[in-house]
Amino acid sequence: MFYNQVLLNINKKIKLTQKELEKILRAVLTTSNFWKIAELCELTLPFLSSVLRSLQEQEIIKIKDDKILLSSKGKKLIQELCITKIQKFTCPYCKTEGVNFNLLNIKKKFLELQKNRPQPLRKYDQGYITPETTLKRVSFAISKGDVTNKEIFIIGDDDLVSIALGLTRLPKRIVVVDIDKRLIDFISKISKKESLNLEVLTLDVREPLPKEFLHKFDTFFTDPSETLEALKMFIGRGLVSLKGVGSAGYFGLTHIEASLDKWHKFEKIILSEFNCVITDIISNFNEYVNWPYATQTRAFKISPVKSIPKNNWYKSSLIRIELLKRVSWNLKVRKKNIYSDKEASTT
Amino acid sequence: MFYNQVLLNINKKIKLTQKELEKILRAVLTTSNFWKIAELCELTLPFLSSVLRSLQEQEIIKIKDDKILLSSKGKKLIQELCITKIQKFTCPYCKTEGVNFNLLNIKKKFLELQKNRPQPLRKYDQGYITPETTLKRVSFAISKGDVTNKEIFIIGDDDLVSIALGLTRLPKRIVVVDIDKRLIDFISKISKKESLNLEVLTLDVREPLPKEFLHKFDTFFTDPSETLEALKMFIGRGLVSLKGVGSAGYFGLTHIEASLDKWHKFEKIILSEFNCVITDIISNFNEYVNWPYATQTRAFKISPVKSIPKNNWYKSSLIRIELLKRVSWNLKVRKKNIYSDKEASTT
Repeated sequence: MFYNQVLLNINKKIKLTQKELEKILRAVLTTSNFWKIAELCELTLPFLSSVLRSLQEQEIIKIKDDKILLSSKGKKLIQELCITKIQKFTCPYCKTEGVNFNLLNIKKKFLELQKNRPQPLRKYDQGYITPETTLKRVSFAISKGDVTNKEIFIIGDDDLVSIALGLTRLPKRIVVVDIDKRLIDFISKISKKESLNLEVLTLDVREPLPKEFLHKFDTFFTDPSETLEALKMFIGRGLVSLKGVGSAGYFGLTHIEASLDKWHKFEKIILSEFNCVITDIISNFNEYVNWPYATQTRAFKISPVKSIPKNNWYKSSLIRIELLKRVSWNLKVRKKNIYSDKEASTT
Repeated sequence: MFYNQVLLNINKKIKLTQKELEKILRAVLTTSNFWKIAELCELTLPFLSSVLRSLQEQEIIKIKDDKILLSSKGKKLIQELCITKIQKFTCPYCKTEGVNFNLLNIKKKFLELQKNRPQPLRKYDQGYITPETTLKRVSFAISKGDVTNKEIFIIGDDDLVSIALGLTRLPKRIVVVDIDKRLIDFISKISKKESLNLEVLTLDVREPLPKEFLHKFDTFFTDPSETLEALKMFIGRGLVSLKGVGSAGYFGLTHIEASLDKWHKFEKIILSEFNCVITDIISNFNEYVNWPYATQTRAFKISPVKSIPKNNWYKSSLIRIELLKRVSWNLKVRKKNIYSDKEASTT
């Protein structure tokens, strides 16, 4: 564990986490230009400069003709930490970062594999995003540095994020839990067929997370029901699965089932109870495929018209949060109906 | 004030703000399809359905063949409130909303007009975004419904957002305050030349906001220095200029001068002290043009290399917040140096 020594040496002068060291090394591996490194690593410039100075003193990097280069010792460190170059998947048209899923070489394969997926069930408040959205979610998370060589936990996966992630071959480990055995079986079958090495488990997340999943992951994905209780439970389970500072979580949140008052309450929980910072909120990122059970939903019942929606209309914002301090909330949720409130409409 | 009566009638059954009524009417003006209305208005579906029912009872809308249509009474209301259709400026490539500034027909004109703008001064911690970013910021705010027929307040405008907004001819009123007389003169000159009707004023926002600007605006824009004190001051002045619930603010925040700990602290202030909800955070939305005073910055001094950046490297996230309850913070800031802290690097 050579990197432990490097971290220790830096920490004599500057408080640095392993995730921060990784960010800097990834940027240095990607470009030798200092200003581009500053742009890519997303840390404050005084902090970055101090760390680079320490890395130079330790002969991890060398500076030649104003270029920041990895020494042979540095290259060894990169290898030990399995650091890879930063990929940004920037849209060529509007320059928005992370959304150009066309750059993923798994598109054709994923679109093919997802064709026979289980259809959404009302009893689980299921409803999946378009396969293109799943790919966009993955390309976004790769751009954020939350996928490559990371351990990833997925809570509820009718969106098949696990399969898309697995096909990229980038993560170190992918674990999927879902209450729905049909989905677990489907994901399991594809995983075997495509050698994706996904770990799958049927689980009701109202139960506390099993011990073997606590504080083991870098990144989680979930797409919860939108009552305050369900949001808290799904995101809470995600957060307790995370290793600690610098780990990240992704989830969707709509305006269709969550008023801004609810958004406000939940953002407060994220910041205060859950020790997280909100780093990204992209409106209408997630587009959902219309439910086969549309006519049974509350949405349909209370709607002033009685025609089934023809086009996809249900969308949600993609939200990314980052952990600043470990979370330990992992209680059993005893209340039965936590999936509906007065703002709910798709159950 | 016909709409006051409509609002009153709805409010007998449902608590509704004028902004919410506007959102629904804009969506109804844009499409007659209920599900598309639900997608566009960004309110919860049970709430939307109840309001539509009330509007139907009041004969503002009628439902025919499952289509939601405006009655002649409804059309009058639309006219009285100066409601216009929703424009989303969606990127044709990646489908991200609000970022397709090429749809603005002011691009050529704005790029031309901004050519002789005053160059950034270090003493004011200035540094402007590329003109394309200014246009993107405007197209994003239009998409969010914060520009058309709105009263807009801009605090510090080396980005020339006021000119771009003025050229669209969409806002009802635009007021710009800036500490820098050169900028105020430049904006004023363009405003006269192009008949933009911008109201401009030299102002140091460490002073409380003049009474005539309190609670008068729908939207504010600012791009503050990033110490916690400066952030609080700039955003605070913006918020106290806003009318109330549903009004919105836009600002930039970097990772280069603000650590995630600072982000976290500031997000808490936004949610708790400032009664706002965060609705959007788009990473690396804002791209800044390199400063002419680059070699004098702390960034340059502490950088381990001594070459001036060739490409733009300084970027920030665009953040949109929405007010849930009026803010009244408007104190004088007595401390002189609030523009620099240990994370600062561009001053």
